[in-house]
Amino acid sequence: MTKSTKILLSENEMPRQWYNIQADMPNKPLPPLHPATRKPIGPEDLAAVFPMELIKQEVSTERYIDIPDEVFDLYKTYRPSPIYRAIALEKDLGTKSRIYYKYEGANYSGSHKANTAIAQAYYNMKEGIKRITTETGAGQWGSAMSFACHHFGLELLVFMVRVSFDGKPGRKIMMNSYGAQCVPSPSNMTAAGRKILEADPDSPGSLGIAISEAMEIAVQDPYTKYSLGSVLNHVILHQTIIGEEALRQMEKTDDYPDVVIGCFGGGSNFSGIAFPFLREKLVNGRDIRLMAVEPASCPKLTKGKFMYDFGDSAGMTPLLPMYTLGHNFIPEKIHAGGLRYHGAGVLVSQLLKDGFIEAKAKMQRECFEAGVMFTKNEGILPAPESNYAIAAALDEARKADLEGVSKTILFNLSGHGHMDISAYQKYYEGNLPDHELTDNEVIEALAGLDFPD
Amino acid sequence: MTKSTKILLSENEMPRQWYNIQADMPNKPLPPLHPATRKPIGPEDLAAVFPMELIKQEVSTERYIDIPDEVFDLYKTYRPSPIYRAIALEKDLGTKSRIYYKYEGANYSGSHKANTAIAQAYYNMKEGIKRITTETGAGQWGSAMSFACHHFGLELLVFMVRVSFDGKPGRKIMMNSYGAQCVPSPSNMTAAGRKILEADPDSPGSLGIAISEAMEIAVQDPYTKYSLGSVLNHVILHQTIIGEEALRQMEKTDDYPDVVIGCFGGGSNFSGIAFPFLREKLVNGRDIRLMAVEPASCPKLTKGKFMYDFGDSAGMTPLLPMYTLGHNFIPEKIHAGGLRYHGAGVLVSQLLKDGFIEAKAKMQRECFEAGVMFTKNEGILPAPESNYAIAAALDEARKADLEGVSKTILFNLSGHGHMDISAYQKYYEGNLPDHELTDNEVIEALAGLDFPD
Repeated sequence: MTKSTKILLSENEMPRQWYNIQADMPNKPLPPLHPATRKPIGPEDLAAVFPMELIKQEVSTERYIDIPDEVFDLYKTYRPSPIYRAIALEKDLGTKSRIYYKYEGANYSGSHKANTAIAQAYYNMKEGIKRITTETGAGQWGSAMSFACHHFGLELLVFMVRVSFDGKPGRKIMMNSYGAQCVPSPSNMTAAGRKILEADPDSPGSLGIAISEAMEIAVQDPYTKYSLGSVLNHVILHQTIIGEEALRQMEKTDDYPDVVIGCFGGGSNFSGIAFPFLREKLVNGRDIRLMAVEPASCPKLTKGKFMYDFGDSAGMTPLLPMYTLGHNFIPEKIHAGGLRYHGAGVLVSQLLKDGFIEAKAKMQRECFEAGVMFTKNEGILPAPESNYAIAAALDEARKADLEGVSKTILFNLSGHGHMDISAYQKYYEGNLPDHELTDNEVIEALAGLDFPD
Repeated sequence: MTKSTKILLSENEMPRQWYNIQADMPNKPLPPLHPATRKPIGPEDLAAVFPMELIKQEVSTERYIDIPDEVFDLYKTYRPSPIYRAIALEKDLGTKSRIYYKYEGANYSGSHKANTAIAQAYYNMKEGIKRITTETGAGQWGSAMSFACHHFGLELLVFMVRVSFDGKPGRKIMMNSYGAQCVPSPSNMTAAGRKILEADPDSPGSLGIAISEAMEIAVQDPYTKYSLGSVLNHVILHQTIIGEEALRQMEKTDDYPDVVIGCFGGGSNFSGIAFPFLREKLVNGRDIRLMAVEPASCPKLTKGKFMYDFGDSAGMTPLLPMYTLGHNFIPEKIHAGGLRYHGAGVLVSQLLKDGFIEAKAKMQRECFEAGVMFTKNEGILPAPESNYAIAAALDEARKADLEGVSKTILFNLSGHGHMDISAYQKYYEGNLPDHELTDNEVIEALAGLDFPD
């Protein structure tokens, strides 16, 4: 009956800077390439899509970047976020290890996505942009961006992956409540969407398709820009507030993680908590393991290929050097819609290739089982995405017990599952399918792609 | 674009005692009566239903009651809750007044109900009870109690008002996730439920019916007790942690509320925030208005009669002196399921009668309109119940502006609306009905009740 303990930071202990891991990477990431020339692109090639300040952050090698006051003021309405030690969960598991989690779901948007939404909306507003287009999977990112845009006086158009749009109507209503428009993707609004619909009118959609649609609209108008919720360096930069806080919180415990775990879609929540700890390893030699957890049905980190590929389905983005299953890959309709992305962010991909982080794929049902065990003990109902991190944390604790050792495990609970109740219902009814992408399916997905490694 | 500011308390500033307004009421509440003898009942008459420590709290006239360490430890996992100054909302409204809200929705259960659920589960566990039965309207209370019972090792059976059970399937799944059983009420499990179903197989249910069912099960077994989520003195006692914190938070602002507002079902969230401020008025003479806001479709405070009545539909509770619409009244199926109760708690009723608090009834659509305006500016999506407090807060600000004055307004944002998205959808689609109980309908509802005034 010992309840989990909360580890807080005061507002004046909050980090005032984001951490840019590009400063400390032993091997710098390869440059993005122009799809036609296959030559490295410059900042000007991105100017039709992003505001200049975000492009600068994308390529910056400065170690720390100041958080603007206006962004910090909004951060303060929901940050610092708490870390809990999951004592009840530890007891139920019977483990000798200590399990901590950073909870990013208590803010308005229900997930970590607010951290970059606020920053991106702010920089766009500062450069006179009037309207943003974006994609969303499960809807966490779309919700976060909707409020941020309303707050800074920007319009927003969200392309929501159809399978999530149909399965999670609540997220659309939430975006509408913040004044944003939300349409299912693939849609008839864009050439990219129409092309997919012609081939498959029942396409469930994918994040890759939704990105193509959002970009297609953005490039048509100088006052409209595109915004991405994960993958890119500047997005991951903004999320490092999570890990910077977590470092300071762990310092208050006289404990330090042996392993830091995050679920993995494009990389933003994993990198957000992991990169500040990775800095401590790279710069100060503090030993630690960093683990990204992906669905077995969308296993780009564990089964994909490191090569140049498009970030979107229609091939509108530059070619990015990343672990990928191919930009045309449409993942199974798992409930963790935020993890249904074919590629991994450039920074994570390089760091995985170089052996500084590790990756693991998990099945859907086992992750829900872990999520339900977590809920019963800790009270919070996790987002289906976050269940992947929980399941891996339980694996680590069980493994340590088998080995007769005690570990300190920290994971990122990226969001709540209040809008995902129907997925839990299916789990309880025994109707949650499992799907593991086979090696042959991976080969098939990557067939015909002739991009450089 | 100025964002609302957060007013925090540190953990060591948290109140360690609940406040019992019975100590300071000029007119003490009338005693509960035995329905057969119509004589005041004693603590022993309640022993079949509640554990002794809660019965003692029910009748206590001690001003302060210590919060047990085990309860305080759980409180600390989500308390102190923040107060926000709603600067964005103020700007959108164009008011000169200052609007503050205390947010009780960021905890596991999504509402203030956790504050008493934890306390009630704890005291039952201490007295060796194995199983609890309870009612729930919108499901906030049932969710809160489910986790609290699991935490303290108790079984829980929840009777959920059918209209909410059908309209909000998510809450049942949530209760199941915490290991509780949840059945729609009226049910075939009890004589009280069967009687209602015989008369009307399509009965939407009511809190009064669900209470009868839960009590009927509880009294059959000495190791099973009943637990109520509102109305009673001990429930309201536990909720005063809200107002005690709010007082300390307002002290940090150099500001002090002219009016404190809460939505009103049985009285727990309103009383929780209001009573500590009322103490400051009664004991220290600090001027303040305290306003309870109820649905126009269930207006016991503004149109009901002050008299003895049952707390439940089947007449299993003692007779309580309260404002009531009659224990057989079944309110319209509004989305604020937590406000669909025929009576008002004894303490609030006496204080309203004596002129220390005021009451107001509001229509459903206007409350959702206020809630949507709040969401857009403040980010948080409120529970339909909380929308009644928001609407009244906007009224107060507008009235002050008309009068050319500036007021300080504090309301309790009792919970989030993540499980109520379908109600918001109906609002957006223009399908949200309005209903105001007429004077004639009130007379009809009260007809035939011959209880003493």
